[in-house]
Amino acid sequence: MQELHGYYLEDLSVGMSASFAKTITESDVYGFAGISGDMNPVHINEEYAATTPFGQRIAHGMLSAALISTVAGTKLPGPGCIYIDQQIKFKAPLFIGQTARAEITVKEINEKRRRVICDTYVYVGDKAIAVGEATFMVDSKAS
Amino acid sequence: MQELHGYYLEDLSVGMSASFAKTITESDVYGFAGISGDMNPVHINEEYAATTPFGQRIAHGMLSAALISTVAGTKLPGPGCIYIDQQIKFKAPLFIGQTARAEITVKEINEKRRRVICDTYVYVGDKAIAVGEATFMVDSKAS
Amino acid sequence: MQELHGYYLEDLSVGMSASFAKTITESDVYGFAGISGDMNPVHINEEYAATTPFGQRIAHGMLSAALISTVAGTKLPGPGCIYIDQQIKFKAPLFIGQTARAEITVKEINEKRRRVICDTYVYVGDKAIAVGEATFMVDSKAS
Amino acid sequence: MQELHGYYLEDLSVGMSASFAKTITESDVYGFAGISGDMNPVHINEEYAATTPFGQRIAHGMLSAALISTVAGTKLPGPGCIYIDQQIKFKAPLFIGQTARAEITVKEINEKRRRVICDTYVYVGDKAIAVGEATFMVDSKAS
Repeated sequence: MQELHGYYLEDLSVGMSASFAKTITESDVYGFAGISGDMNPVHINEEYAATTPFGQRIAHGMLSAALISTVAGTKLPGPGCIYIDQQIKFKAPLFIGQTARAEITVKEINEKRRRVICDTYVYVGDKAIAVGEATFMVDSKAS
Repeated sequence: MQELHGYYLEDLSVGMSASFAKTITESDVYGFAGISGDMNPVHINEEYAATTPFGQRIAHGMLSAALISTVAGTKLPGPGCIYIDQQIKFKAPLFIGQTARAEITVKEINEKRRRVICDTYVYVGDKAIAVGEATFMVDSKAS
Repeated sequence: MQELHGYYLEDLSVGMSASFAKTITESDVYGFAGISGDMNPVHINEEYAATTPFGQRIAHGMLSAALISTVAGTKLPGPGCIYIDQQIKFKAPLFIGQTARAEITVKEINEKRRRVICDTYVYVGDKAIAVGEATFMVDSKAS
Repeated sequence: MQELHGYYLEDLSVGMSASFAKTITESDVYGFAGISGDMNPVHINEEYAATTPFGQRIAHGMLSAALISTVAGTKLPGPGCIYIDQQIKFKAPLFIGQTARAEITVKEINEKRRRVICDTYVYVGDKAIAVGEATFMVDSKAS
C-alpha cells in the first residue's frame, strides 16, 4: 500500500501548490443536499432562491470546502496526511454551472510536530470565493 | 417565501442551540467521494484503510463539517442566514456506521453588524469529534 | 427465478438484434465519474474541456460501453449469460445531452462451447461512435 | 489548463505503470445499474443471484472496466489522452465488498502515430479478474 501514500514531510517545501477543479452541477448540489441533509431552500428551491440576494440557487459552502479536502486527500499533502483543522471564509456564492478550482499552497512546515500549514483558496475564474488556512499532520520518513 | 425564512436577528439569544444527527453510511461516504472528487483511499479502499492507524475506512472530515452546515441552513439560524466563516478542528475519525450529531450554539450576537457567532460541535455519542466556531450574517426584521 | 432467465442457446440465431437507448445527462456523467473515480477534467471541468479538441465535456467512453452491457444483461442474450470478453473501438465522443443507442447483433454461435459472438455498436443518430465485438457464454436448455 | 495535462508522448516509456483501487460497494453497483440501465438481476436481485453459479450479486463487468478508464484518465497516460480502443476478457466475478485494483502498464509506443498500447488488468488481491489491452492516442510536445 506504500505506493498509495502521498507526500512525506521531507518531500514538502514552502510554496508547493496543487489544485482540483470541477464544474459544479445541479446534480452535485442535489447529491450534496441529500448526503448532508442540508435542505436549505437557497440550494434546492429555485423559487425561494429567486427571492434572495443571490437570485438563484447556490452551491453549499461546504461543497466548496470539500474541494479543498479533495486536493489535500488526493494531491497535496495526499493520502496518509491527517486533517487537523480548517478555517474558511466564504467570500462569494458559487452558482450551479460555475467551475470551482480549489488550491492548496504550503505556507509553513513544523518538522518537529509534523505539522504543515497551508493557504487554501477556492476560485471561480480569478475570483477567490473562499479563503482559508488548513493544518495537516504529515508522516515523516524517519518515523 | 417568507414562511421559509429562519430566525431573524431579534429572535436569537445567546445559548440557543439546535442539532442534526445522521447515521453515516457507506453510501454517504461513497456519494461524498464522488461529488467532491476526494478519492483518498482512506475513504474508499478498505485494504488500504486497514493499514492506516484508523484500521478501517473513515468518512471525509468535510462530511462531518457539512452536518454543521445542515443545522445552520435548516434550523439555527436557518434559511436566510449567510455563512461568513467556519473554523473546525478535527479531533477524531468518523467511521462508517456511526451516528454523527452536529450541534450549533449561539455564543455572541453583534446586532450592529448582524453577525452571530456560534460554537459548533460534531459528536459521536458523547465524544466531540469536531470542534469549531462559525459566523453567520442574519437578517434583521428592521432592515 | 426461471422466468427471469434470458435467451437460451437454442433460442438464438445469427442476425438477431436488440438495443437500448438513453439520453446521456450531466448527472449520468457526474454519477459515473463518482462511481468509477474517473475525474478526468474532460468529463467534469467545462473550462478545461473547452480547451480540448472536443470543445465541451464528454461522457466517459466506458459509459458508452456500459450501454452495450445493458443490452446484453437485460435483452440479448439477457440474464443468465456470462460476459466473456468485449472489444471496443471508440470512434467519436459522446456529448452530454446526446442520445446513445447501444445495439447487439448475433454474429456467430458455437453450440459446443456455448459461445455467442456478437457485433456491438453504440450510435448517436446514424453515426457509430463505438464499434466492437463481444463474446457471451449462454446456458443451453440441454444442460 | 496546461497544468491539468497528463503525460506527453515523450514522457512515456515501456514498463511504466499506474493503478487505482476501490472497495466496490452495494451503492456503487446500484448507482452503476441506475446510470447504465443494466438491471440484470444478477447485479440487483439477491434472490435471483443466489440461484446462479455466483451465489450472490456481482458487480457489472463494465464497472471493473471503468476502473481501467480511471487510471487512464487520471494517471497514465492521464488527461489529454484519447481512448482509441479497449479489449477486455472477464476472468472472474467481482463481488460486492471486494477491493478491485485496476492497473495499466505501457507495452508499446508508436511515436509516429502517437499511439500507446498498454496491458490492462483488474485485480482482486493477487487474482486477475479482468485482463486486456488498451490503445491511447497521446499528445506530443512537438505537435
